[in-house]
Amino acid sequence: MTTDTGSASGQLDDAGQPAALVAVPVTGVSTDAGVTAPKGFRAAGIAAGIKDSGSADIALVVNDGPQQDAAGVFTRNVVKAAPVLWSQQVMTNRKLRAVVLNSGGANAATGPEGFQDTHATAEKVAEVLSEQGGEVGAIEVAVCSTGLIGERLPMPKLLAGVATAAGALAATPQAGRNAATAVMTTDSRPKQASAAHPAGWQIGGFAKGAGMLAPNMATMLSVITTDAVLNGEALDTMLREAVKRTFDRLDVDGGTSTNDTVLLLSSGASGITPDIDEFTSLLADVSLSLVRQLQADAEGATKLVDIKVTGAASKADAVRVGRTVAEDNLVKTALFGSDPNWGRVAMAVGRSDARLDPAKLAITMNGVTLLDAGAPAEDRAAADLSGPRIEIEIALGAGDHQATVYSTDLSHGYVEENSAYSS
Amino acid sequence: MTTDTGSASGQLDDAGQPAALVAVPVTGVSTDAGVTAPKGFRAAGIAAGIKDSGSADIALVVNDGPQQDAAGVFTRNVVKAAPVLWSQQVMTNRKLRAVVLNSGGANAATGPEGFQDTHATAEKVAEVLSEQGGEVGAIEVAVCSTGLIGERLPMPKLLAGVATAAGALAATPQAGRNAATAVMTTDSRPKQASAAHPAGWQIGGFAKGAGMLAPNMATMLSVITTDAVLNGEALDTMLREAVKRTFDRLDVDGGTSTNDTVLLLSSGASGITPDIDEFTSLLADVSLSLVRQLQADAEGATKLVDIKVTGAASKADAVRVGRTVAEDNLVKTALFGSDPNWGRVAMAVGRSDARLDPAKLAITMNGVTLLDAGAPAEDRAAADLSGPRIEIEIALGAGDHQATVYSTDLSHGYVEENSAYSS
Repeated sequence: MTTDTGSASGQLDDAGQPAALVAVPVTGVSTDAGVTAPKGFRAAGIAAGIKDSGSADIALVVNDGPQQDAAGVFTRNVVKAAPVLWSQQVMTNRKLRAVVLNSGGANAATGPEGFQDTHATAEKVAEVLSEQGGEVGAIEVAVCSTGLIGERLPMPKLLAGVATAAGALAATPQAGRNAATAVMTTDSRPKQASAAHPAGWQIGGFAKGAGMLAPNMATMLSVITTDAVLNGEALDTMLREAVKRTFDRLDVDGGTSTNDTVLLLSSGASGITPDIDEFTSLLADVSLSLVRQLQADAEGATKLVDIKVTGAASKADAVRVGRTVAEDNLVKTALFGSDPNWGRVAMAVGRSDARLDPAKLAITMNGVTLLDAGAPAEDRAAADLSGPRIEIEIALGAGDHQATVYSTDLSHGYVEENSAYSS
Repeated sequence: MTTDTGSASGQLDDAGQPAALVAVPVTGVSTDAGVTAPKGFRAAGIAAGIKDSGSADIALVVNDGPQQDAAGVFTRNVVKAAPVLWSQQVMTNRKLRAVVLNSGGANAATGPEGFQDTHATAEKVAEVLSEQGGEVGAIEVAVCSTGLIGERLPMPKLLAGVATAAGALAATPQAGRNAATAVMTTDSRPKQASAAHPAGWQIGGFAKGAGMLAPNMATMLSVITTDAVLNGEALDTMLREAVKRTFDRLDVDGGTSTNDTVLLLSSGASGITPDIDEFTSLLADVSLSLVRQLQADAEGATKLVDIKVTGAASKADAVRVGRTVAEDNLVKTALFGSDPNWGRVAMAVGRSDARLDPAKLAITMNGVTLLDAGAPAEDRAAADLSGPRIEIEIALGAGDHQATVYSTDLSHGYVEENSAYSS
């Protein structure tokens, strides 16, 4: 099979590949550290041989307390992977001692046997952690998997890998990075984010995901930790709010995965109880940084596309319009070609089922208003979309609500990667 | 800009382009004749200079009676082109003397001036037809446009072209073919279908459309004629039923256009009143033939993909699942790669919002059942998707309803064509 990703658009590097996109930075958030930035957490990432490539494929994150409160948000896909079904049960207690994650297989659509594999994995984690002291039960262990759907996992390798990972656990930045690396599938780089509040508590996390990426709540997995003192109920409320504003606004290809999971674990090790609004805000910032990294590393992406919808009759309408435009292949291919084809944007807006008045509709691309009050405004040639960032603003004229959806273009690279890689 | 459409899959011709796909034939329907097959109709297709290429760009279809009953189905996109707004008004009378169609511009998002352009076009058609004898009003003339959204049409050229087209009107097969050719945009070939009932009446039609193709009611334009004796109300009922089963089941890229229109005109010239069920059935067959031709000529398509959904709780659920799978880029790119990646199909089914039991879900690709009762069945290597036709059967296990959606793969050719062509 030939490979040709150099085409209509985009900077190409020396090898003729599109240059890597740089994630949009979020003020106050570092991307150098992740889950081990807050106190009370150890992590590891090791190669267990699940992936044929020999790359790292098992990550383990352990909460050493003193508290083990946690919250989780899971895929809304009706076809849920075995690890999602398991972790949803676990989270009814809102307590987590550990999260084990594997790449190299999604353990989705694997029937009852697949669920038993997940259960056995949690049991193994509980066993090896109990050997390190304390008494850990499988019901305190969340499991996440990512990779090809419809294949059983190689359990002997996986269980042996869990023991290896437990032996490698450390509270160091490198250990956090190893965990963030072990969950990668088609990701080209690990994605971490952390932020410290002046009061003395921290939030840190990692995420993976490059395709099948439209978290509603893609395989998008993220583990976020904090040493702030917060109970499970508070964590749950704040996580749902942050996810709604960040992970749920990322839409690369409309593919809500069978395995999407975001977990938030609190150790309480800072001893500090945070202000709720401040915590939610910083959690959203850390989540947004992870989303920006996911956006920049999306399969085949040559453009970072932000779609801001204003004047919507409701928040839901604003998100609906943003997602419809984000998923529209005619819009996405035009953007790949740096073509300010606002007519396609208008078409997508019109088919979104959101309330709008076509006579008030306005579309602005990279600062140039091309459609105003339902009629052509500035000449499309005035809008320069040749760079790596494209901002589309869509004013519906139907109300006061707004939302931004984070997306990418649709390139030859996306087609190549997804017609060749069985995931 | 370089062009490289030869890649992961598909037969290539001598020039390195994918070989043209052959439309799936419909029993009893000919693709050699179209709107002039039934008695009582004349047609023309001429070049008015709207397109820079100098290709034909105005089509005219005239109903010479004795009756002028008609029905129309229009796009559900909220952003409706000026010709759609006009033709919807016209169709409240359920009478049509003529349909004028232009390619080279959609006249969508063009404001009040665009609507005036459409009105002036209808007036011009009425004027030139009145000069041929009889008294034709603008209100008896439907207008259809296709091409780039957001540009005004070159009215002097268009109006002069209408007069030229009126002079070229003929009841011959070639005249019907000329009309079918003049409405093409990125279409590579004209699409016609006709069928004769043993009782003595006929149905004929043409359609255009290659991208922005998910009629809900894409720019998908179709004009269908019959010489059966039927009134407007009956035509409307039967057209809606046929469209629901055929045009609405075509989904190439989810892009419901601003201009989609299907018109059905009856001349009554056969003098024969048909059986309603027989007429609806033959109308659906002619429509399906046009849909099969649209599917085979879709932008960049290298595979004809039929998605049959069975065991649905409702017809709407069956269509919803079919369309979600049809629009899923991960499924579409896998099919381009001839990869029986049923896990992606399962993901798409699960995010469709249809009622289903994951433990009963079954997926069959080209006759090989890969998922059965929610767990892996035959090895994916057993399913051969290397040919140009792919049939995916999805059994939901939730009821007795079923539907088939007609789609294509997502190829480098699609990306190339749509990143380069401003439409």
